[in-house]
Formats: sequence, structure tokens, C-alpha cells
Amino acid sequence: MIIVIPLVDGFTALDAIGPYEVLSRLPEARVVFASVSAGPVQAETKMVSILAEAALSEIPEPDIVCVPGGLGTRRHLDDPELMRWLTRAHGTSTWTTSVCTGALLLGAAGALEGKKATTHWLELPRLGEFGAEPVDQRVVFDGKVVTAAGVSAGLDMALELGAKIAGDDWAKTVQLMIEYDPQPPFDSGSWKKADPQVVKDLRAFADAGLLDGDQPAS
Amino acid sequence: MIIVIPLVDGFTALDAIGPYEVLSRLPEARVVFASVSAGPVQAETKMVSILAEAALSEIPEPDIVCVPGGLGTRRHLDDPELMRWLTRAHGTSTWTTSVCTGALLLGAAGALEGKKATTHWLELPRLGEFGAEPVDQRVVFDGKVVTAAGVSAGLDMALELGAKIAGDDWAKTVQLMIEYDPQPPFDSGSWKKADPQVVKDLRAFADAGLLDGDQPAS
Repeated sequence: MIIVIPLVDGFTALDAIGPYEVLSRLPEARVVFASVSAGPVQAETKMVSILAEAALSEIPEPDIVCVPGGLGTRRHLDDPELMRWLTRAHGTSTWTTSVCTGALLLGAAGALEGKKATTHWLELPRLGEFGAEPVDQRVVFDGKVVTAAGVSAGLDMALELGAKIAGDDWAKTVQLMIEYDPQPPFDSGSWKKADPQVVKDLRAFADAGLLDGDQPAS
Repeated sequence: MIIVIPLVDGFTALDAIGPYEVLSRLPEARVVFASVSAGPVQAETKMVSILAEAALSEIPEPDIVCVPGGLGTRRHLDDPELMRWLTRAHGTSTWTTSVCTGALLLGAAGALEGKKATTHWLELPRLGEFGAEPVDQRVVFDGKVVTAAGVSAGLDMALELGAKIAGDDWAKTVQLMIEYDPQPPFDSGSWKKADPQVVKDLRAFADAGLLDGDQPAS
């Protein structure tokens, strides 16, 4: 089972590594980090690079596609080589998935047309531009298309997807292996629960266009 | 503020990327992934490599040290160069932290002597070998030493540490930015909650010494 995680300059590292940490443990799985060209790809903070071990053109027909998001994704919505690869890979994949604003890349490649989907909460309305029906939910399954909300939601998505592929016991075992018993110190992970001022500040940040830039998120 | 994440061959990627994703957003923070020699460092699955952008010797006095674990850490407990660096860095750090079996590396460097600490649940008793007092808790603060339980616990640790450094509002904002509103599909992330059979299988796996090897975790 080949799982490709396509990286673009300016991706969010946790969007990619969350699902990788779960899906790489699927039986017979081979996760391949890839990019338009092989080589190191820098995350949005410019503080970490992950090696793309293959060019996307070398692996045109993965079983699973998992597209991470990040501040840089918006610059790649009309990247012809990436779009061509995504369109083809989605045509033959068993599962096409995204985390955070990776959904915008899937949308630009036409994979969300008529689909229920989610993305980072600040970008949710934008899914409509791609013919998708935005759903304010952490993980959304619609046929073979699976989208996750912002950054950390990729962990939940991967466990849910893994359970469908390899069974609940497999997913429970992996959850215990990675000791995923979350205990965040605050209950601030959703705009529906966070302090209104915190929500307002981040919305202002997004409205100022800073999510389209190259800046780290704070 | 310099935050160094020292990588060794066979690390667990999420151990490193969880805290990175949070701590890199601290005001004026610079996260540096480093290793004994600069260059790509391969994770335990052999399916992903992160670039160590510096040799550890270039950054002897970070403000924060954050040591990830992984199946490979056990092979590095007597790595003289790494141990020398850890001992020195811990001597001048403001915070010395670990995720998962990164605590074993801290222990081997003498940083856990007389300290309360945690690690991956399967390795918890082993902390006693380093003069530490094992605490079965997700995140343990003892003075400037902060240890987190297995793999995904680094996210919770980093938010808690970040709140101490930059304030609760900062941590709440970052939590919302990375949409950390966890909704795992099962409640299997702790040996106290998982199905007894799942716990037993993983213990057998560990008892067979497979955690000391090079194999992916399942």
C-alpha cells in the first residue's frame, strides 16, 4: 500500500507528520514524502525541512493521497505540475485525503466538486469556491474523499481512516502506541469553545491577509 | 530564544514535530533541528527524514532543549558526543524537555537524577535506572525539567510550557491556530483505558525486545 504525502514549500509540518505517524503503521504500508522535485522542502516557519524522497512523477498512482496544508499552499493552487499529479492520483486512488488547507489544493485539482469537506476553520467558507459543501466538523468522509480540519486534526483523521482500512483493533493499538490520550491544558482548540477575544484576534489576522503570506502564524 | 531539537537516527517524527509546531510560534523563537552532524536524519520507520540544519556543537547553549524519543534512542544512550552535548546544554538551559523515550537520553546524560519524570508508558519503570522518580502522568514538571509521555504527549507538553513562557492567552491562541480540539475515534490512548487485550499485545511486543530494535512499531 503506497501512501503519498505531497509537500509544497511552506507546508505545515504537523499536517504531514500527524497522519504519517499513524498511517505508516498500516500493514504493508509504505509512506512516501514527495514533491514536484525530490529534495528538502521547507515548512512555513522556515525552521524545519522534510526530505521529499521522490518526485511526484515517479509515483503517479498511490493507494492513498494525503495532502497537508500550510501557509504556502495558497501559492500552489495553480501549480500546473502539482495539479496534474493530484488530478491523476485522485483518479486512481483508493482514498484521497487532506489536512487543514491541503483541502484547498484538492479543491483546485477538482477533487472536491460536489463533495462535503472541511479545512482549517478560518478557511472553511472558501471551500465553496471549489464546488464543495463546507462542513464544520473535525473529519469529513464523503465517498473516498476524506478531509480533516486544521493541523492537529490529521491525527484523528488518520486513526479513523486506519480503522476503516485495518480494523478498530489496529487503530486502538496504534493509538496506545503513540499514547494519544490528549490532555491539552486549555479548551481552546475550536472557535466554538475558545475565548471570543482569541477567536477575534485570529480572524483579524486572517482578514489582514496574513495567512496568504509567508509569515509564521504568530 | 533558541530551541534545539536534537535528532538521532531512529527518532519518532511526531515526538519532534508536535512540540516544534507549538514552540516555533513563541515570540522571537528560533527552533533548530540539529544532530551530531548536520544533514538528513532518518526516523524509525525509515519512511521520513528531517534535515538537521546544524551540528549540535554549533549550538552548545540553547534556551530550551527538547529531546524526542523513538525506537532508535536506545542505541544512542552511550553516544559520547550526544551525551556531552546534552550534559552541557542542560547545564545552561532555561528548560530541558523530552518527549517519549527522549527521557531515556536525558536520563543517560544525568539530567533526571532525583527528578520526577515520565516517558512512554512501556518504558516508565526504566526511568529509575537513571535516578529519576517515574510518574505515570502525561506531562511532568520538576524545576526546569519537563518530560512528556509517549509520542503525541509532546503537543500537550509544549502548550503547557508555552503558557508558562508566554502566557495563557498565547497558548490558547496557538491551540486555536493548530485547531487542537482532539476527537480521537477511540478512547485507547492510555493503558488505563484501552482494551486489556490491546495493552497485553503491546506489552508482549515490548517484552520481546522489539522496542529496542529497528522495526516500526507494528
